[in-house]
Amino acid sequence: MSDFEKLNSENVRQEAGRGILLLPVGSVEQHGPHLPLTVDVEIPVRISAAIAERVKGFVAPSIFYGARSLPQSGGGPEIPGTIRVRGSVLTDYLKDVISGYVSMGFRSVVILNGHYENESFLFEALELCRQEGRLDGARIVALSWWSLVPQALLDKLFGDRFTGWHAEHASVCETSLMLHLRQDLVGAERVDNVTPPRSGIYTFPIEASKISNRGVLGNTSSSSAENGRELFEEICSQLLSVIREHMRV
Amino acid sequence: MSDFEKLNSENVRQEAGRGILLLPVGSVEQHGPHLPLTVDVEIPVRISAAIAERVKGFVAPSIFYGARSLPQSGGGPEIPGTIRVRGSVLTDYLKDVISGYVSMGFRSVVILNGHYENESFLFEALELCRQEGRLDGARIVALSWWSLVPQALLDKLFGDRFTGWHAEHASVCETSLMLHLRQDLVGAERVDNVTPPRSGIYTFPIEASKISNRGVLGNTSSSSAENGRELFEEICSQLLSVIREHMRV
Amino acid sequence: MSDFEKLNSENVRQEAGRGILLLPVGSVEQHGPHLPLTVDVEIPVRISAAIAERVKGFVAPSIFYGARSLPQSGGGPEIPGTIRVRGSVLTDYLKDVISGYVSMGFRSVVILNGHYENESFLFEALELCRQEGRLDGARIVALSWWSLVPQALLDKLFGDRFTGWHAEHASVCETSLMLHLRQDLVGAERVDNVTPPRSGIYTFPIEASKISNRGVLGNTSSSSAENGRELFEEICSQLLSVIREHMRV
Amino acid sequence: MSDFEKLNSENVRQEAGRGILLLPVGSVEQHGPHLPLTVDVEIPVRISAAIAERVKGFVAPSIFYGARSLPQSGGGPEIPGTIRVRGSVLTDYLKDVISGYVSMGFRSVVILNGHYENESFLFEALELCRQEGRLDGARIVALSWWSLVPQALLDKLFGDRFTGWHAEHASVCETSLMLHLRQDLVGAERVDNVTPPRSGIYTFPIEASKISNRGVLGNTSSSSAENGRELFEEICSQLLSVIREHMRV
Amino acid sequence: MSDFEKLNSENVRQEAGRGILLLPVGSVEQHGPHLPLTVDVEIPVRISAAIAERVKGFVAPSIFYGARSLPQSGGGPEIPGTIRVRGSVLTDYLKDVISGYVSMGFRSVVILNGHYENESFLFEALELCRQEGRLDGARIVALSWWSLVPQALLDKLFGDRFTGWHAEHASVCETSLMLHLRQDLVGAERVDNVTPPRSGIYTFPIEASKISNRGVLGNTSSSSAENGRELFEEICSQLLSVIREHMRV
Amino acid sequence: MSDFEKLNSENVRQEAGRGILLLPVGSVEQHGPHLPLTVDVEIPVRISAAIAERVKGFVAPSIFYGARSLPQSGGGPEIPGTIRVRGSVLTDYLKDVISGYVSMGFRSVVILNGHYENESFLFEALELCRQEGRLDGARIVALSWWSLVPQALLDKLFGDRFTGWHAEHASVCETSLMLHLRQDLVGAERVDNVTPPRSGIYTFPIEASKISNRGVLGNTSSSSAENGRELFEEICSQLLSVIREHMRV
Repeated sequence: MSDFEKLNSENVRQEAGRGILLLPVGSVEQHGPHLPLTVDVEIPVRISAAIAERVKGFVAPSIFYGARSLPQSGGGPEIPGTIRVRGSVLTDYLKDVISGYVSMGFRSVVILNGHYENESFLFEALELCRQEGRLDGARIVALSWWSLVPQALLDKLFGDRFTGWHAEHASVCETSLMLHLRQDLVGAERVDNVTPPRSGIYTFPIEASKISNRGVLGNTSSSSAENGRELFEEICSQLLSVIREHMRV
Repeated sequence: MSDFEKLNSENVRQEAGRGILLLPVGSVEQHGPHLPLTVDVEIPVRISAAIAERVKGFVAPSIFYGARSLPQSGGGPEIPGTIRVRGSVLTDYLKDVISGYVSMGFRSVVILNGHYENESFLFEALELCRQEGRLDGARIVALSWWSLVPQALLDKLFGDRFTGWHAEHASVCETSLMLHLRQDLVGAERVDNVTPPRSGIYTFPIEASKISNRGVLGNTSSSSAENGRELFEEICSQLLSVIREHMRV
Repeated sequence: MSDFEKLNSENVRQEAGRGILLLPVGSVEQHGPHLPLTVDVEIPVRISAAIAERVKGFVAPSIFYGARSLPQSGGGPEIPGTIRVRGSVLTDYLKDVISGYVSMGFRSVVILNGHYENESFLFEALELCRQEGRLDGARIVALSWWSLVPQALLDKLFGDRFTGWHAEHASVCETSLMLHLRQDLVGAERVDNVTPPRSGIYTFPIEASKISNRGVLGNTSSSSAENGRELFEEICSQLLSVIREHMRV
Repeated sequence: MSDFEKLNSENVRQEAGRGILLLPVGSVEQHGPHLPLTVDVEIPVRISAAIAERVKGFVAPSIFYGARSLPQSGGGPEIPGTIRVRGSVLTDYLKDVISGYVSMGFRSVVILNGHYENESFLFEALELCRQEGRLDGARIVALSWWSLVPQALLDKLFGDRFTGWHAEHASVCETSLMLHLRQDLVGAERVDNVTPPRSGIYTFPIEASKISNRGVLGNTSSSSAENGRELFEEICSQLLSVIREHMRV
Repeated sequence: MSDFEKLNSENVRQEAGRGILLLPVGSVEQHGPHLPLTVDVEIPVRISAAIAERVKGFVAPSIFYGARSLPQSGGGPEIPGTIRVRGSVLTDYLKDVISGYVSMGFRSVVILNGHYENESFLFEALELCRQEGRLDGARIVALSWWSLVPQALLDKLFGDRFTGWHAEHASVCETSLMLHLRQDLVGAERVDNVTPPRSGIYTFPIEASKISNRGVLGNTSSSSAENGRELFEEICSQLLSVIREHMRV
Repeated sequence: MSDFEKLNSENVRQEAGRGILLLPVGSVEQHGPHLPLTVDVEIPVRISAAIAERVKGFVAPSIFYGARSLPQSGGGPEIPGTIRVRGSVLTDYLKDVISGYVSMGFRSVVILNGHYENESFLFEALELCRQEGRLDGARIVALSWWSLVPQALLDKLFGDRFTGWHAEHASVCETSLMLHLRQDLVGAERVDNVTPPRSGIYTFPIEASKISNRGVLGNTSSSSAENGRELFEEICSQLLSVIREHMRV
């Protein structure tokens, strides 16, 4: 039984005042031939659980279905395996969930995102909640886990195999993290894409063959569980710093 | 590793053609002092898993956050612990997820609901998908688990402790099912509400004290794991019949 | 001239403080070969008028066009004669109308629904108004007329010809009420559907022939004006009780 | 029993192919101290009924609740008695109703508007339906009744008492038409507003006292049932011409 | 450098308190063979600039893309060259822009429209802002430039060549104004449409050939720069009066 | 007269087939004490104009009002001078404009963005158009100008004064470009922010003083017109390559 599962109609107000709520947000999205569709939720769930052990925390049920995958950052709609929620719908859904936890009594809420294309729609949801006063009294941190990774660590672990976060879809970081966290879910293939897409350039018609190699936008060949462990520890440590600084816990 | 976790960018089209997709939809909602907030997902997830063992099936990640709890059927907003998604937002979110699985290649999709107030918004989502041709080529079954329970079984198991599905919130059926499925999550208290709300009558201002006893709308005192087991078996058996009849699997 | 028609820019504030506003909400929907498309408005209008005679009341102009008919509860889109408003649109429309009457000065508002599939969208409208403070100062009752009918009366009047409210579309209750209220609008045919749909089970593709017999979901053969009269009197009497209890008039 | 009330699940397709559907759209809106709140529906309903007698026609149930009253054309929100539906909601509602009648089988649809501020939202609904192909196969006429009145007739009947259609709210035309059509609903007072608002100029803050005299924007003092009769006959005659020319009936 | 271009993060609050904000709103829309697509912005921009010279004013960047062109007032979708924004989208966009300027500190805001079909959606935006309190503290004037033109001037300048504002699309007023303001943008052709559409009558299917002559709904043959100059001076003079009266500047 | 201003109802179809449509999208947003509010439009307009000289192109009227400024990338709502359009509204507005140009006949459309927070909502608009088939037949490129700047050039021009694109708000790149393009609009102050925000980390409450120095998120002290010229030339050259490669012009 997780701490979240211990909450009920009678203790929730009191408990909510005592700990941090961590909400993982991700996607069901293809991640190449070697990773499951749930990578973008799996990683934030594991980070959230690790944080909840170090500060008093409740890991909320995940939001599994996220924003559409764009060609230049996730491979786009041409590669099978991806659920695409419209951005405005995701924003509205997130608004209701996040403001719901605040009105349930949580004063410290961390939203941890694992899907590249969710980010703007998540921030929009928070800003709309803020404008309507629905965050009042709470302290919020919202971020994607990769925002916590120092460039120096990427250089050390992956060198030029890392080709930018926009192209880090199903690539060295995600593969390494999954090897560390859920080795049972990682297949044997290691695909490299020698021509990763340029960041931020959308073209139509979509030329899927130019964008990814079987759904992988960057490289996977330098992935390892050990690299994943280092990444994971750094992310958790950085997130803990952000939480401690901002939330004063 | 579940069968769903085995799907990836390269096998998903083929696999989707081979099995049923089961999508649990529920709510984070207070369920009295003795049950966790996740009852409405827990039950459809367990039913889905049981079905997926009997026919080739993939249990998709759940939609955890559902429609608002109404006073007369879920206790409403006065009792802490409930996340409320606007109905139109839930409908839009469900549209994108369900039509996404159809376009991913699943030809047989079962949506299994565990939250009373989701039902109309789920059916609306399906009808909108249908009108737009987004279900074409698929066979769909969508229902709440209680629609599968024969009155005769309720009479036998609970007699007059069962006071109608609208008032079956956190009451004998849900408590019994949870005792059977997740006894570790069920607290010791057994609350009865001697004056369950009338079905379908909305009044404002909301008088919470008239509606529930600590979040329970009906009775819990005749709950048992054995009753839960009988209920569960009947639900699975009925669902299997519906699937077999409608989907020809 | 009805009491509502006596209202104008100068007396409306004062009059609104003196009486109940009754708002009928229904649908233009096929009701088999023997009933007009307007049954779902006709019945709540007649009930509203009867109530307005017994307590000081104003019967507001009806909302004629309602939510889509679902296959399992209204026959669905395959049978001609039905207008389908999207649920979110109906909710928004109802929000503006209901909150409009409250801000016009009505302190007691009864919304009387006659169309099965409207219910959730009506309750959603009310909850959204409530959250935004737009019902403040008013007392509201919202319900469908069938929520007021005791099971015992159904047993007495119709026995096993009554097959559940979800299947009571164009069937014994509606036919009897129409025979009592508007005999001129009722045709001679009396269709029975020997296999009424199961409650709450949505399947796609829709198999219209399995759901209804020429638009009738249950039975009509035991309908009578006398049964309609008993039903009508009971509904009015029950509604009066609910109003008196909740609105203190 | 009106012709519309004779429609049912079995004859509606055939009947719809034989006659024109007339849909009155209006508003519940204050109309000064002498007129009821339902003027904007009353007038199009009567015109529709007159047309339906001359060509084979079905008068559909009215849409009673319309767009907000603007200060410069309806008096605005400061004067009690008005329901305001958001424009986008009205458009969506009209879309579903109008396209619903087309898909029900009506090939000739006349939408007759009686509320000034509805017009743009009605045309928007029609254009959206058109773009989506939902009018295909039908012939549509949509207009407000005043678009049919020749200036020469206004000059003859009212001279300078008529101060422009934007200011014709609760004034000589509406009052005369109501005296002709529903004298029982017209009060004795005849208010004139010596400074009718300029057309199309919106100012905030709203200065209600500058806009109307007790809800009347123009003049009422030259109203008469006889003038109303002439107006009504001309409107019906003009509408019949438009229908005959455009619909070839 | 315009006065608006002098605003920055540090002076904007103070400057906003000192002058009027003028916001031109128009359309990219075909205007016949002799006028550019930007007529509906060009005219309000020039008027705004003229006003900003006479009272302290800031001309805000224009909203170039407006509501759809309707057949009976702008030629509609059959004639190439027109961008059509859905009415509800335009309303939402205007809401955010207008309320944004108010919250930026502008206390006097003039919205000057140049596109016939924008009007209702602009007024709707303002009313929604007003209801939400987002105009509080400001004084607003919103109008289309033609609302400022006296009939007597039209009679004098154009006689019966002017066929009503609804048909004044690409016709004598717009052509004359453009000849006065941007002669370089006006082509040599002068098209007349001998059968201008009737005002406010929407018919489907659209018969483009009946509505306009090459995109012109009225007449152009009596256009002249001198007429344009007179029109322009009158509009500016009238607008200045409205501003001075309502805004007390 | 620009080439766009030469388009009219009769030549637009043919001309649209001959050249590229360039659509600048930006924001009215504070850019510190030294830059005007219109920087985010000014830059894409100038780039578009330069491109339109080198390939046959039409520079469409700009979309001036864009998505909300986020604290971590634009300074957020605490600093005066910014208009915030909701993301979903911007997406809808862009959808109608972009698909409008495609249906007007343009086969090659470049959307050039100058406002950081617009990007996701622009891509969403394009993907929604694509899904609905509204881009069919056209070739589209959409990007923000900074996506075209090689890291090596940034290193050469600005060294460590460049602190990442997320923090490049009102900083060295924008200031240099404005010095090159519109020196008349650039004030004398050169503000540096020694603690630029971390990328992608949203916190509530917003602590404006931690994020920017008077609206500047990075550095301005190494800005120069010459650096701006080099940047501008590189951007134009890169954009031309992208256009030539993708559009085959």
